Amino acid sequence: MGKVYIGIDLGGTNIKIGLFDGDLHILKKTSVPTKADMGPDVVIGNMAEASLGLVADAGLKKSDIQAVGIGTPGPAAYSKGIIIKSTNMPTFKNVPIVQMLKDRLGAPIAFDNDANVACWGEYIAGAGKGVRDVVFFTLGTGIGGGVVCNGELVHGCAENGAELGHMIIYPDGRRCNCGQRGCVEAYASADSTARRAQEAVEQGRQSSLKKVLDKKGKITAKDVYEQVAAGDELAIEIAEGTAKALAITCVNMLHTTEPRRILFSGGMIAAGDILLEAINRHFQQQVWTLKKEDVEIRFATLGEDTGIVGAAALARHNYGPSK
Amino acid sequence: MGKVYIGIDLGGTNIKIGLFDGDLHILKKTSVPTKADMGPDVVIGNMAEASLGLVADAGLKKSDIQAVGIGTPGPAAYSKGIIIKSTNMPTFKNVPIVQMLKDRLGAPIAFDNDANVACWGEYIAGAGKGVRDVVFFTLGTGIGGGVVCNGELVHGCAENGAELGHMIIYPDGRRCNCGQRGCVEAYASADSTARRAQEAVEQGRQSSLKKVLDKKGKITAKDVYEQVAAGDELAIEIAEGTAKALAITCVNMLHTTEPRRILFSGGMIAAGDILLEAINRHFQQQVWTLKKEDVEIRFATLGEDTGIVGAAALARHNYGPSK
Repeated sequence: MGKVYIGIDLGGTNIKIGLFDGDLHILKKTSVPTKADMGPDVVIGNMAEASLGLVADAGLKKSDIQAVGIGTPGPAAYSKGIIIKSTNMPTFKNVPIVQMLKDRLGAPIAFDNDANVACWGEYIAGAGKGVRDVVFFTLGTGIGGGVVCNGELVHGCAENGAELGHMIIYPDGRRCNCGQRGCVEAYASADSTARRAQEAVEQGRQSSLKKVLDKKGKITAKDVYEQVAAGDELAIEIAEGTAKALAITCVNMLHTTEPRRILFSGGMIAAGDILLEAINRHFQQQVWTLKKEDVEIRFATLGEDTGIVGAAALARHNYGPSK
Repeated sequence: MGKVYIGIDLGGTNIKIGLFDGDLHILKKTSVPTKADMGPDVVIGNMAEASLGLVADAGLKKSDIQAVGIGTPGPAAYSKGIIIKSTNMPTFKNVPIVQMLKDRLGAPIAFDNDANVACWGEYIAGAGKGVRDVVFFTLGTGIGGGVVCNGELVHGCAENGAELGHMIIYPDGRRCNCGQRGCVEAYASADSTARRAQEAVEQGRQSSLKKVLDKKGKITAKDVYEQVAAGDELAIEIAEGTAKALAITCVNMLHTTEPRRILFSGGMIAAGDILLEAINRHFQQQVWTLKKEDVEIRFATLGEDTGIVGAAALARHNYGPSK
């Protein structure tokens, strides 16, 4: 066996780690609790130990590691290799994670934000495989984004590009956590979808979601899509609003980097065809008639491995053997 | 003198041609009527003849031409070198312009749409000089766009990327010529700005623009900005609407390719500081507070030479000596 790659997905709760061969086939993977409260030294120490554990389990040595990739939530100074701060890991402030990992693993480290890493994973080994231009959305608490343009990730001038959840689609509309009004994230993330439904029920709209709210004290996106399937009028209206907001964002990306594929990932894609069909339908309604577009709107396919596959793929892209 | 570059700006009315040295200093320039009704053979013959005329005037030979760049309005198959059709030149259908020019000028031909060429010109030699990420808008009849990301023009998967005028910013809003609703072009191009003013006057709004309409039978963007300067309430409201639409589009581009500079060009920038100040003001009102943005919003600086400078710069980029 040739050299191997390690892909790391650093989240607030767990660290997922995968060991990959040169073709990005997964050899071993593991997950360890982040324990962010123990501070960066311990967290990064555990991360390195677990990584070397995978290498040893595969009968390999530290020197067999060609490169390591890691994705984290922002904000970070990616090209400098520093996590500036982290909402989910308050002990992480100005942590030189790239140098710290390099010291422990003895290999070059590719570092990027988690949405970019996931986008790159889908581009190389998932639903974006085989095309050169991809746009990627994660639908979770917020909406994350990634863009591959001309075969490279878009980072922007200050490494804050592809924050696609903060495209304004309804000027003066709903307030977003970012401070703007009318962001797509304020309508179509899993949280915003649930919140719009809950607000409507609290304002007295008739809906089977009323029972859910009374019983659980809150409504989730999962609840909304369950009630869409059951034919509830309000749930359908809310889900249509989510799909339309996402479709408009797809139209806008089409007129920007013109991707061949637009991919959706994250918890909310569990809604399945109900969601995907609605996005595609609204896209066809909204998009221009000047030319027939052959963009494909699909769900991501790597699931929970996206982060580790993407990180390993980025490590190979940045530090693998030249082609 | 070393090899020279030729930059050609093919418009429906005139063909502008410039001769440039290796540092993109302009040596000679000319403009000849397009005479599109004579058909592509004559037009391209005249274009080549005028180009060779500039070369001879400079005391040079055909073999001194390193490369030629040409920009045209779309739609075209740029990588194949073919103008598919042209609104302003109905005789141009499936014209292999790159091969035809190459046969006549004996040099490699760089070919792109006029907005991309202008964007590249500003990036290399104008208001975008010195940064790696630029977004460019032309405000004319419509709104054209160009994007330089990671130091390269964005073309998209089917060479129709960067059609930034067709980003939807007001869903279900004004109908755009492209078939969509709510495009920024339907609000903020020179034509749409004028049209919104004229509609308001025709609907009975009090305004000094009423006199203009009565006298000339139509209102132009120039009229609107003249009345803004004179303090007319309706004109100010219309101009604010234009600036807000452009500012929202700037916010959206910030969250996509994150440019360091956003440039506006085209006839409407004659409005000057009134326009630029308003775009900047609305941008600051609309943009997130998560981080302080240091994007600069400016006017393009190459003026009427943008097309020929951009075309020559693209020729040098694609076919110049490697650095």
